[in-house]
Amino acid sequence: MEKLKLMSLYADFRKDLAFIERELEQSVDSSSPIIRQASLLLLRAGGKRIRPIFVILSSKFGDYSMEKVAKVAVSLELIHMASLVHDDVIDDSDKRRGFKTVKAKWDNRIAMYTGDYIFSRALMSIGEIEIREVHQLLAETMLEICKGEIIQIDFQKKVDQTFRDYLRRIKRKTALLLSSSCELGALVSNASPDVVRKLQRFGYFAGMAFQIVDDILDITSTDEKLGKPAGSDLLNGHLTLPTLYIKDEKEFQPFLQRSFDGTLTEEERAEMIKYIRKSGAIERAQRVSDLYLKKAIDELESLPEGEAKSALLKIAEFLGKRKY
Amino acid sequence: MEKLKLMSLYADFRKDLAFIERELEQSVDSSSPIIRQASLLLLRAGGKRIRPIFVILSSKFGDYSMEKVAKVAVSLELIHMASLVHDDVIDDSDKRRGFKTVKAKWDNRIAMYTGDYIFSRALMSIGEIEIREVHQLLAETMLEICKGEIIQIDFQKKVDQTFRDYLRRIKRKTALLLSSSCELGALVSNASPDVVRKLQRFGYFAGMAFQIVDDILDITSTDEKLGKPAGSDLLNGHLTLPTLYIKDEKEFQPFLQRSFDGTLTEEERAEMIKYIRKSGAIERAQRVSDLYLKKAIDELESLPEGEAKSALLKIAEFLGKRKY
Repeated sequence: MEKLKLMSLYADFRKDLAFIERELEQSVDSSSPIIRQASLLLLRAGGKRIRPIFVILSSKFGDYSMEKVAKVAVSLELIHMASLVHDDVIDDSDKRRGFKTVKAKWDNRIAMYTGDYIFSRALMSIGEIEIREVHQLLAETMLEICKGEIIQIDFQKKVDQTFRDYLRRIKRKTALLLSSSCELGALVSNASPDVVRKLQRFGYFAGMAFQIVDDILDITSTDEKLGKPAGSDLLNGHLTLPTLYIKDEKEFQPFLQRSFDGTLTEEERAEMIKYIRKSGAIERAQRVSDLYLKKAIDELESLPEGEAKSALLKIAEFLGKRKY
Repeated sequence: MEKLKLMSLYADFRKDLAFIERELEQSVDSSSPIIRQASLLLLRAGGKRIRPIFVILSSKFGDYSMEKVAKVAVSLELIHMASLVHDDVIDDSDKRRGFKTVKAKWDNRIAMYTGDYIFSRALMSIGEIEIREVHQLLAETMLEICKGEIIQIDFQKKVDQTFRDYLRRIKRKTALLLSSSCELGALVSNASPDVVRKLQRFGYFAGMAFQIVDDILDITSTDEKLGKPAGSDLLNGHLTLPTLYIKDEKEFQPFLQRSFDGTLTEEERAEMIKYIRKSGAIERAQRVSDLYLKKAIDELESLPEGEAKSALLKIAEFLGKRKY
């Protein structure tokens, strides 16, 4: 239902997205059966294709060229996919979006190399763009994402962390790639520097709002909708915004400890989720997301009106309020 | 001793190599302590810096620019380093060149992300080169290397494989990156297409010879010189050229089985190595390496004489005959 709503927001750009989808399928069509199967598994598990749609919409503020846009969009979506495969190794996750992960279906080594392979495919795609800035920006983004992942390992199961630690982490985990999607989309279509900057900031703020909602949904949604157990973040040792607010509450401590040391029972998981939902932490986290969302929308204000701007606004609002 | 000899072959290019070494150190100087330590560990473990020297020497056949050469050389050496970190995860190796591996000192997850980080650094370095062909070639090379690594996993502990399977594997594992080092070095200095092609082929053949010698040394050298146990390839489940020749011999079968299933004792390892050394397989493998070496040298024949050509010849000969 929710997914249908998102797709309806993409409706005007269906042709562009379909083209990118085909390019994505082609680019993982390896002669190695394992790589092909693993990549297609990832691709077909879907996802919201937010990076491609942000590239498309940002490109509309300049001289739109479907070909260039597709190369950038494919590259960014592949980088996103590759990082998911490697994340699943770190989190030892068996399921993502209801599908078995690569590391669960094969093993960690295959997951590592499938990720590497998809990264390389991403480079092949962007390699055809002849703008130096594009390559530098992409490399910097990847670098920051990697740093973020190491920091994420560092903070795993660590109770002693701040609001700022969390924000820095989600910036690298999500906001940067969305920000770069907008920036690169605008760059390849030669939008003016001012427009590039605004779109880049829009992507960043929308990304922050998006990730906070994602972290909220990990608690408020159902196992079925998530395609993995609710509360997975805690079970994987990651404190997120809602749980950061209550981590020091006495009643919450046993849940936290047992989540981190892997002894939480199924029953306790349900209790824990109930506890967090009642604590008010969800509402506080949602307010932070709303603030970021507002900042994102403010960036768009002075941009020229048109279907791209109105679609960006609607998608951002959807991402900040969504239920899946 | 042997290492000193190699360094003496590099003598005329000491300044260029020192510059590249500094750039390498700088480019892994991350603000994350784990990444910095892990990368420096790798960097200081040394290695022969064959990729950088091939880039330098190939560039001498065109308009040599130290700055461009350094960017390409740093990028290729980093890609090589990153692939080593990921290889150690696959092989579950605790030592490399006498140093603890990243996965042994920390864990597989840190090794995975250190590799990713170094890859990204490699892209940052090459990102400053404004030649489309360079980016495409690099992406293609990385893609083939990744494919090779998946195939390597596929063939692990598999007795049923051919001479051709082996050659295809070492092509992707080693020869391609050396071939691309020469090609990219020549490309960034605007050497003529004919020269680029010859250098590319030289790098490829030299790389094949080099890897075969590497596989021979795994059996003929000492644990101390290798910085890991002799016979590691078999213990990791990899058949190499010498062992391919004798894999079907009745007396060798128990060694092979026990190596692959991890039950080989220290005593049996010594016996096995003795058996292989006496079997004539080493000499057969060396002859194949010599053939590739000759092909490599033939490619250089028609290139203009000079210090670059003579250094390439000497280094190639050293690589094909070396004892470490």
